[in-house]
Amino acid sequence: MYVYGRNVLKEIIKAKYPVKNIFFTDSKKVDKTLNDLINLAEKNKYPYSFAPDKVLQKMSGISKHQGVVIDIGKEFRYADEEILETLREDATIVILDQLQDPHNFGAIIRSSIAADADLIVIPKDNSVEVTPTVIKVSVGLAFRIPILKVTNLSRFIEEIKKQGYWVYGADMSNNVYYKTDLTGKVALVMGNEGSGIREKVKSKCDALISIPMANDVDSLNVSVSAGILLFEIYKQKRGE
Amino acid sequence: MYVYGRNVLKEIIKAKYPVKNIFFTDSKKVDKTLNDLINLAEKNKYPYSFAPDKVLQKMSGISKHQGVVIDIGKEFRYADEEILETLREDATIVILDQLQDPHNFGAIIRSSIAADADLIVIPKDNSVEVTPTVIKVSVGLAFRIPILKVTNLSRFIEEIKKQGYWVYGADMSNNVYYKTDLTGKVALVMGNEGSGIREKVKSKCDALISIPMANDVDSLNVSVSAGILLFEIYKQKRGE
Repeated sequence: MYVYGRNVLKEIIKAKYPVKNIFFTDSKKVDKTLNDLINLAEKNKYPYSFAPDKVLQKMSGISKHQGVVIDIGKEFRYADEEILETLREDATIVILDQLQDPHNFGAIIRSSIAADADLIVIPKDNSVEVTPTVIKVSVGLAFRIPILKVTNLSRFIEEIKKQGYWVYGADMSNNVYYKTDLTGKVALVMGNEGSGIREKVKSKCDALISIPMANDVDSLNVSVSAGILLFEIYKQKRGE
Repeated sequence: MYVYGRNVLKEIIKAKYPVKNIFFTDSKKVDKTLNDLINLAEKNKYPYSFAPDKVLQKMSGISKHQGVVIDIGKEFRYADEEILETLREDATIVILDQLQDPHNFGAIIRSSIAADADLIVIPKDNSVEVTPTVIKVSVGLAFRIPILKVTNLSRFIEEIKKQGYWVYGADMSNNVYYKTDLTGKVALVMGNEGSGIREKVKSKCDALISIPMANDVDSLNVSVSAGILLFEIYKQKRGE
């Protein structure tokens, strides 16, 4: 899988994520930032080579590759289910039930790390996966948080409930998000763009929480709702 | 300009926004929701006709038009500067400084109405405008809030400051958003996706406010930040 962009490479190196190769543009018009990146790759012993812009464009499928395309191997490296045992006490888990849009997924990954969440979970089927677009929209932050694919979200929710997590679903309800205690071991479930959280998954949640809205608007863009809720969790967990 | 989608038509009718014509699909496989929409258009005396799916696709440039394409005339109807005099006491103004991405703009429009904002302002140059994509992403809510284009954002900010507005720019600063009093006449300035608020515009703001973030992340997707800040304003203005 070819991913691209300067922030993306920076995050890959920061995360010590293994790659097959880094392709830098062989154009003579290389600016300082790109040179710094080449030095950073060199210093961290990453394999790299140079290629014409046209080749970079063909690999990435995009002209705005910023002079950097990275071959990260066959597939994005998802986390194992054992990851649960390694999470800190009072972790925050973000569960995305059949999200479809790569821009929403990328933005939610970015917000998750910024709001100090510990794990993102998606279902194996009918869900957007970690694609080059998702990675780009996440400004490379997809490499900084474990992302787990599970076969059965309902079963996963049951499992973490046994481990002491409180599972909140974002949906219409009378529980205003900022009046709900969101501290401790918390999981937040966000639903699909059009249809929200599936009934079966919703029934597994401990509670549903809502963002009060004006003017009879009944929903927000899912990455916006996720951001609002994640930053409330982050705020409460810091005791503010 | 051809806009499309069922929610979009619903909002147009709700807003009593004038259109040139509504084109419904002439396909026999029309479901109940579409029939309801046709009746709604009829009842509200909107001009409409039927056309083959292929024609709808050609007009909208998209296959997911949901059987509805609306000709809203030459351009989206922006607000006049006189709108300022009609706003309620304690209005909220959202100012977008050279936003580029239609998905971000559409999501911010949606959040603005949901958070009870009164006016959205964009600069005439170097800014995304209200396009069919923006309208679609806003789920048609673009028709429910006045959107003003101004030649000079800095001058506009000076003008509203004279009228008693407090102008907050979203930027790195020590002012945590939820520790800042955001009640009263408030304007919120959001910057461009890559470079944030322009220095000149920033210097006109009364204060900068920030969202505290973990893991050295220094920014969020702009529609996510806007959502977090707008819902804090909405919360504070309701005295919560």
